[in-house]
Amino acid sequence: MKEAVSLPVTLADVQAARERIHPYVHRTPVLTSRTLDERVGARVFFKCEIFQRVGAFKARGAFSRLTLLTPEERSRGVVAFSSGNHAQAVALAARELGVRATIVMPKDAPALKVTATRGYGAEVILYDRLGGESREEIARRIVEEQGATLVPPFDDDAVIAGQGTLALELLEEVPDLDLLVTPCGGGGLLSGCAVAAKGLRPEIRLWGVEPETGDDMRQSIAAGHPVTIPLPATIADALQTTRPAERTLALVSGLTRGILTVGDEEIRRAMALLAARMKLVVEPGGAIAFAALLHGKVPESAGRKVGLVLSGGNVDPDRFGALISGLET
Amino acid sequence: MKEAVSLPVTLADVQAARERIHPYVHRTPVLTSRTLDERVGARVFFKCEIFQRVGAFKARGAFSRLTLLTPEERSRGVVAFSSGNHAQAVALAARELGVRATIVMPKDAPALKVTATRGYGAEVILYDRLGGESREEIARRIVEEQGATLVPPFDDDAVIAGQGTLALELLEEVPDLDLLVTPCGGGGLLSGCAVAAKGLRPEIRLWGVEPETGDDMRQSIAAGHPVTIPLPATIADALQTTRPAERTLALVSGLTRGILTVGDEEIRRAMALLAARMKLVVEPGGAIAFAALLHGKVPESAGRKVGLVLSGGNVDPDRFGALISGLET
Repeated sequence: MKEAVSLPVTLADVQAARERIHPYVHRTPVLTSRTLDERVGARVFFKCEIFQRVGAFKARGAFSRLTLLTPEERSRGVVAFSSGNHAQAVALAARELGVRATIVMPKDAPALKVTATRGYGAEVILYDRLGGESREEIARRIVEEQGATLVPPFDDDAVIAGQGTLALELLEEVPDLDLLVTPCGGGGLLSGCAVAAKGLRPEIRLWGVEPETGDDMRQSIAAGHPVTIPLPATIADALQTTRPAERTLALVSGLTRGILTVGDEEIRRAMALLAARMKLVVEPGGAIAFAALLHGKVPESAGRKVGLVLSGGNVDPDRFGALISGLET
Repeated sequence: MKEAVSLPVTLADVQAARERIHPYVHRTPVLTSRTLDERVGARVFFKCEIFQRVGAFKARGAFSRLTLLTPEERSRGVVAFSSGNHAQAVALAARELGVRATIVMPKDAPALKVTATRGYGAEVILYDRLGGESREEIARRIVEEQGATLVPPFDDDAVIAGQGTLALELLEEVPDLDLLVTPCGGGGLLSGCAVAAKGLRPEIRLWGVEPETGDDMRQSIAAGHPVTIPLPATIADALQTTRPAERTLALVSGLTRGILTVGDEEIRRAMALLAARMKLVVEPGGAIAFAALLHGKVPESAGRKVGLVLSGGNVDPDRFGALISGLET
């Protein structure tokens, strides 16, 4: 039995975020494929955030947060920690808004993402995520030393509201969606989309998808509080989170049907099929929602209109080539 | 000194083809990338025929031709020979228009293309292109035996007019294009686009791009008549033509600036960059126009608005993975 709780982010917050970020981000296309519809037995609408600026939905949250900075906060700069797409997004938003950015990234982040983040003019500090100081500690030290504002990847109302703007766009194009399925890392994307989609269409059913090895949100929902898991081993580098936030857990628990999980081989098959049939390059974490549908894991999806978020496309060509090779499509 | 000649296909023919094929084909998106614009020093508009039905522009020409069949011709079926994309296109158009299709394909055509052609319900006859009966001979035998109509891949006015419809769309979106660059196999795509683009905008400059090893159109322009070359060795399977048609040679000679050529490694780099930056899966022949621009081979393109046709995306994931791996992007 759920208590009535007031959630930290509302539809009005998402709509306000959309007004703020509109000059800076793309309205991404919604693509369809008759072949894939036949394959999965549903009508699928792919929201292609791979074509978003920086190649991932994260641009929405970053611009949403940075457009709220006061002039004084802008002058002191921002700092972020991220395995990749959030880093690029904060770096881009900072550059366009004239703000200095420092990004703390793991040493084993994909080279494409590190290079792109530096290319946007941010200072990148690499750390070893298997030992020593945590990225949170490094980021907090910079906040203290420079008076910079921390831009969290998901534990922030403005970031969550920004991510939700993609669901506003999707439901404008397909107002009668039955389901919406998104990847779930820390839960910012899923939370924001849930706020927007349930606000516009209360009967819509939302699911998040996590890697089997990285189901911190699923465990946290079951426990009723944020649970910390070890750094998950998964090809979905964008979803290697170890603990959701209180606020994303509250939003996901309150507004979605829950979490589905898929394995790395299922993700690879989804990536290969998206390449072969849709001609799209989608990174592992970005393909996970489609992987769940493709492998029959989304409940009551048969014959339904299903929105799927392809959340990012930042994967080195070498790695992409290796991941989509040697599979049946 | 060129004589004034009456060309076999006109802007009105392309406009008429567009009316006929409109119910059957996609208006494909035109994508842009600030990163790639900076890289090549021009403003590039990518006409994405990878998202066309059957994954290539060939759907346009096939529907253009098949919608002209008389009821009697429809009842006797169609036959086509093709290394891939034209085959799929004729198979699809035949299925949707209720016409029986027989497709003659080389044994070494990409498996994805053979499978897809059969998937559209066509009968596929495989032949060995290194020996024995030629595909033209096999096709002509079927024409004689069944009374079927041959749908040539490029040596046909209706097919050429159909391919040109993509240039109508592109120039509607970007009316002030300075250049338009397309792949060139037998010349149907380049011819059709030239008719449409020059008809709408006489000052536009057109270039075709061929593989270095497969420059039958370039040699034919120089000779003033169709020249036959040996089967070219190139990764661009869609452009392995050995001889243009009289009509495509006349159109290309009369309306374009000529032919540029690129090598396989240049094509691979273009494919990898399109994957890394645009998140697009483009087959080797489909990426050849961008390869020419990327490697500085398109004259007077600096600072200009350049339309590039990404003509097809039908490449097996395994092969795609191998082609884009191990390169600097």
